[in-house]
Amino acid sequence: MSNPYSFKRLAILGLGLMGGSLAVALRQRGLVEQVTAWGRREASLQRGCELGYIDDYTLDLAAAVANADMVVIATPTIIAEDVLGQLQGLVLPEAVITDVASVKGNLLRRARQLWGTEPANLVLAHPIAGSEESGVEAARADLFEDHRVILTPTENTDSNALAVVAEMWRSVGAEVVEMDVERHDQVLAATSHLPHILAYSLVDLLAGQDEQQDIFRFAAGGFRDFTRIASSDPKMWHDITMANSDALLQMIDLYSAQLQDLRAAIAARDSRQIMDLYGNAKTARDRFSDMLLARAGSADSQD
Amino acid sequence: MSNPYSFKRLAILGLGLMGGSLAVALRQRGLVEQVTAWGRREASLQRGCELGYIDDYTLDLAAAVANADMVVIATPTIIAEDVLGQLQGLVLPEAVITDVASVKGNLLRRARQLWGTEPANLVLAHPIAGSEESGVEAARADLFEDHRVILTPTENTDSNALAVVAEMWRSVGAEVVEMDVERHDQVLAATSHLPHILAYSLVDLLAGQDEQQDIFRFAAGGFRDFTRIASSDPKMWHDITMANSDALLQMIDLYSAQLQDLRAAIAARDSRQIMDLYGNAKTARDRFSDMLLARAGSADSQD
Repeated sequence: MSNPYSFKRLAILGLGLMGGSLAVALRQRGLVEQVTAWGRREASLQRGCELGYIDDYTLDLAAAVANADMVVIATPTIIAEDVLGQLQGLVLPEAVITDVASVKGNLLRRARQLWGTEPANLVLAHPIAGSEESGVEAARADLFEDHRVILTPTENTDSNALAVVAEMWRSVGAEVVEMDVERHDQVLAATSHLPHILAYSLVDLLAGQDEQQDIFRFAAGGFRDFTRIASSDPKMWHDITMANSDALLQMIDLYSAQLQDLRAAIAARDSRQIMDLYGNAKTARDRFSDMLLARAGSADSQD
Repeated sequence: MSNPYSFKRLAILGLGLMGGSLAVALRQRGLVEQVTAWGRREASLQRGCELGYIDDYTLDLAAAVANADMVVIATPTIIAEDVLGQLQGLVLPEAVITDVASVKGNLLRRARQLWGTEPANLVLAHPIAGSEESGVEAARADLFEDHRVILTPTENTDSNALAVVAEMWRSVGAEVVEMDVERHDQVLAATSHLPHILAYSLVDLLAGQDEQQDIFRFAAGGFRDFTRIASSDPKMWHDITMANSDALLQMIDLYSAQLQDLRAAIAARDSRQIMDLYGNAKTARDRFSDMLLARAGSADSQD
């Protein structure tokens, strides 16, 4: 039996780096009939038209989704909660609703508040791709190639809806994996959200000590790499912090305990414990590095 | 009056990346008459000869320094303490003793133990340069060009000895700055040693959670940059940790307090405090990045 769902008429809600890249990736491959964008800044939408990434746009959410069979929420994380709420009653019964946000638990909770239980045609998704740049100008048709997209279906998710979202992402070159919502948020807290927190904290601490601009003058390449993520957009990371606060607080506690253990080992001049920790970390980091090298196209990936 | 000190006959004690690079940088510019290397691994010393970085070598420390007017301790940090102790009575009265280690306080304390007060001809120094590679094979004549070298004279340091060490580093393209020993160790704890500790701790924590190799599969570019320094040599960083433990413990405590403040803000959903911290960090990091871009040749620097 063929899948009743499809991604022929897309509504992209929020036309930034992610939404713009998905639109142009599908259009360049001739995989969609129609891409309509909705957003709050008309300039971005106009620019998306000029660049040929979308067919048309509207500032009216109801009009944007009226004929869509695939509705992609591609706004910033916190706004996605609001947009999800506004979609109730607007979308076609045969439409699939999906998103690209970095946190999934907050959207699932919101859906359950709105609908009692999450709708079968809602497929939450997170493409692990991005760039230090943002906005539709930074969009690229190859942004998702050889990158992972995590789909987080629940027991209520329609398997056909899930399949069509997976197919959409595979068609633009991504590798699709499934994970439950809670696990997704824990994994991302560990590998992405906590590192951002740690880098922001270090730079803020040193900036406070740095009244004479002295400290940063003597920082070198290792510091530059370590703190690169502290140049990320503060609003975006505020929103992610808020949206994934439960998993993030757990990770902060685990990390703080780990740091206190190491502190105790240094204070006790426990060479073996220090060497074990550094050696173990180096082994794991080198293995990760080899894995990234083996995965073509990931060299410039970000999430 | 001319400087009674000079760097015509160098003894390089420990022929790795730093010692080898200083030797070849001076020799290629024709600034030295003789470079003799001492070390414990004959293979490295032989390789240094074959590469033309040094004139000759010996496994006998007394022979290595017998005629030298500049003695550069370029061994790993902890070994430098021992080597300094062994130099007593071996070097010419008109010789300058200097080093390239990442921590200065431990060597100053060692000198005071040995001599009662630090000798006037001892000029502790730290070139903020390096590479992820190590060993004499990784040495480069341009390693120090446009990099900073921090000299840490005390009130007992002879100004002529200080001047000749500064001249040596400037002659190979470095920018020389002075700082007192305590301040040096604090600045390096903040900008280099603490970041390494934080990166090692995170990777070790995640490796412990990663029994199914799951977590690292979903890490992206931000994580890769953040944890790059966790691939550094564990023994070298163990030694630096031990040598600079006082300043490092202070920084760990400041950092832990900072992280607990942020944790409290997240738990209290204090948007303003979170935004202030992230925004402040981004501003400082962007300023640092601009500074690095403005400083030619630093793009690949490490310490």
